[in-house]
Amino acid sequence: MKDPTTAALSEFLAGARVDVLPAGAVHDAKRAIYNWFGLTLQARDHPAVSIAREWVVSLGGSGATAVGGVGTNLLSAALVNGLASHVEDFDDTHYATIIHPTGPVWSAVLALAEQAGASGEDALTAFVLGVDVACRVGEAVYPSHYDRGHHITATVGCLGAAAGAATLLRLSPEQVGEALGIASTYASGLRGTFGSMAKPLHPGKAAMEGITAAQLAQRGFTSGDMGLESPLGFCNVLSDEHDLTCVTDGLGERWLIQDNSIKPFAAGVVAHAAIDGILRHRQAGLQAADVRAIELRVHRRVKELTGNPTPRLGLEGKFSVQHSVAVALLDGRAGPAQYSDQRVNARDSMELAERVTLVVDGDLRTDEAHVAVTRKDGSGESLHVRHALGSLENPMTDEHLQDKVNDLLADLPPRRRASLRRRVLELDQLADVRPLAGELAVR
Amino acid sequence: MKDPTTAALSEFLAGARVDVLPAGAVHDAKRAIYNWFGLTLQARDHPAVSIAREWVVSLGGSGATAVGGVGTNLLSAALVNGLASHVEDFDDTHYATIIHPTGPVWSAVLALAEQAGASGEDALTAFVLGVDVACRVGEAVYPSHYDRGHHITATVGCLGAAAGAATLLRLSPEQVGEALGIASTYASGLRGTFGSMAKPLHPGKAAMEGITAAQLAQRGFTSGDMGLESPLGFCNVLSDEHDLTCVTDGLGERWLIQDNSIKPFAAGVVAHAAIDGILRHRQAGLQAADVRAIELRVHRRVKELTGNPTPRLGLEGKFSVQHSVAVALLDGRAGPAQYSDQRVNARDSMELAERVTLVVDGDLRTDEAHVAVTRKDGSGESLHVRHALGSLENPMTDEHLQDKVNDLLADLPPRRRASLRRRVLELDQLADVRPLAGELAVR
Repeated sequence: MKDPTTAALSEFLAGARVDVLPAGAVHDAKRAIYNWFGLTLQARDHPAVSIAREWVVSLGGSGATAVGGVGTNLLSAALVNGLASHVEDFDDTHYATIIHPTGPVWSAVLALAEQAGASGEDALTAFVLGVDVACRVGEAVYPSHYDRGHHITATVGCLGAAAGAATLLRLSPEQVGEALGIASTYASGLRGTFGSMAKPLHPGKAAMEGITAAQLAQRGFTSGDMGLESPLGFCNVLSDEHDLTCVTDGLGERWLIQDNSIKPFAAGVVAHAAIDGILRHRQAGLQAADVRAIELRVHRRVKELTGNPTPRLGLEGKFSVQHSVAVALLDGRAGPAQYSDQRVNARDSMELAERVTLVVDGDLRTDEAHVAVTRKDGSGESLHVRHALGSLENPMTDEHLQDKVNDLLADLPPRRRASLRRRVLELDQLADVRPLAGELAVR
Repeated sequence: MKDPTTAALSEFLAGARVDVLPAGAVHDAKRAIYNWFGLTLQARDHPAVSIAREWVVSLGGSGATAVGGVGTNLLSAALVNGLASHVEDFDDTHYATIIHPTGPVWSAVLALAEQAGASGEDALTAFVLGVDVACRVGEAVYPSHYDRGHHITATVGCLGAAAGAATLLRLSPEQVGEALGIASTYASGLRGTFGSMAKPLHPGKAAMEGITAAQLAQRGFTSGDMGLESPLGFCNVLSDEHDLTCVTDGLGERWLIQDNSIKPFAAGVVAHAAIDGILRHRQAGLQAADVRAIELRVHRRVKELTGNPTPRLGLEGKFSVQHSVAVALLDGRAGPAQYSDQRVNARDSMELAERVTLVVDGDLRTDEAHVAVTRKDGSGESLHVRHALGSLENPMTDEHLQDKVNDLLADLPPRRRASLRRRVLELDQLADVRPLAGELAVR
């Protein structure tokens, strides 16, 4: 017998259908999926993605599409697509736990739905439920789990991917419970990988393992009595503290996809308030050449996760608030181009990054920052970003999101960009998701 | 730059060749591999193995053999074979850390060697090195890591599998370092799964992930600066305490495959001293019908891991010292047949198991027990097992091991059993391991 939390969650997932979803949740799900497609397609030739794709081709199999148009088995497709969706660190964030939920969950659901020829409505429901599980378990173990060193997107992402896959496969409550147990024992991902290719690998890995867990459970594989709250289960082993009421409180009433925000900047999310602030300074007329010093007053995670004054690689630059602020002031943006290896090693951004200092302020939230600038002439201003652009209280508009995706896919013909957007907007009307999955087949 | 421990280990693995191995290490490696083949082949129709095999067939691919004669990609073969090798909990143990090293490491090395058509000498070297890494890192983090709830066979098994695969692929020192980092972020496995199918899945999973790590690193995938001793790396995140001198002390001089013991009983290894003790009582004439009570004085792990008086499933029975002692006294042995669902639920063994009590004694080792029997007539004897049969100080002889494997494979024609044994004994002379891997192709 699984414990009460795991049993309740399993019952809920096994009974859930799309008609219970409020329109707001459906809309937020489509925004996240549209953003995922933009990012995944944009990253199709990133070295990390090319390496992974070349490798999965060697494994053989078919039935699902890895971005770049390679037919592989569904695990391989989930791995490559999940990796691609996160490689620019430009995806989305459940701010309360800094989980990036769409990478692990949608990469799993899409591959499974494509192989099965499932409907868009079923895929959308599975996605919303998977995100719900990832974020609920995330809330139960955050911040202790993250402070211990686990990359929460990888770990609870695996549980969310399993929940999404289990929903799509219409598993029984008992099978869902087994799938959550199998996913619990697969859940891993270390924060020490940040700044390397292994970090964006995490959502792909989680997606693959979520499918594995659900498909094994479907066939009768067991994880025994182990549930989320077992003494030697997920919450106790991978976290020093947890609160399991987060998992079940308001289940089916409050949908956590609605607490998910799309990223406007291609960097670690905790750096966003500072980037937003420096862009506002720039809009008010500040020029890089005039700057003597920039002081950032920020939440502790900003220093912990992105306090790297001298990144060497583009992937490391994404975890440098100093580089991010410098390059945003210089270029007026913080998109993928600002985090190439070349841009990180350019003299202008390196010199400006040296002028940035961090002060941790225990009273601030992660989406908040004070950005103080001192000019070479001694004048200066400070600016308070209450809620970073892209945070829950200050989200990107639908138009802004469309601009972001069109920018990401600027090298595609306009009709392809349009067909992608239309298919995602009509996702719940699609009888078969395969044409949508086929959008990944861009060489 | 990786840390000094990881760098030293990477340099060592990249330079290691078979001619440095002492004859004793080669012999112990062959014993472990021979035992692995017996177990893996015996379990080919176990429900857990059948489920996993049916599933991997759906993933497609070819190039490696999953037990039962199914051609799959090498990851799938490693998964199914690793699972099969551990499903009876009858494999082998590095007693100092209770790691079962051969499942994760050999399952990875064999699949990779088969696909590449590697020589037996190269496969053997890779295996010995992989076991060395698994057990060395295990010694560094044991017991803290295990006490925290991680199944050490799964976690350091993943590192050992990666090390073995990296050696076979002749990766450069830098690539080995990246592979160890990727494997670190994949390393997972919860003790809460014990008694279910997800427990034996762990060595298969670890083998698959070790190959993944090595093959990705070979193609240029990175894990950045994260090494074993990084603040957010394997040892710090997955263990509360560790001692990294275990990883490098005597590297290349002391070979940990020589500290590995073959299991004589198909149960959790900590139950072995008690099983050995009751079998000695039986040999001295004790009969089950005469027993009023059996008291076991044992190490704390015996109660923690196997203190289950009422198992319901065969897999749970393997983690019940009460059932193990009862059935050993009744049947005169503790092989796979003693851990079927039926045998666990038989009235005679259930009734006798109720008469068994446990007393934890802090002065005992895990391979030690006092087994005290009281007869219905009031008479009794106590017996002290200093070192359980199958422990390092009291190993199975080569002849005993041959009997074990022949017993496991009693349904195979004698010439097949003979050819298997011959191929393993001549492993370091084999120009190509494929005929040996082909031994798994029994339907």
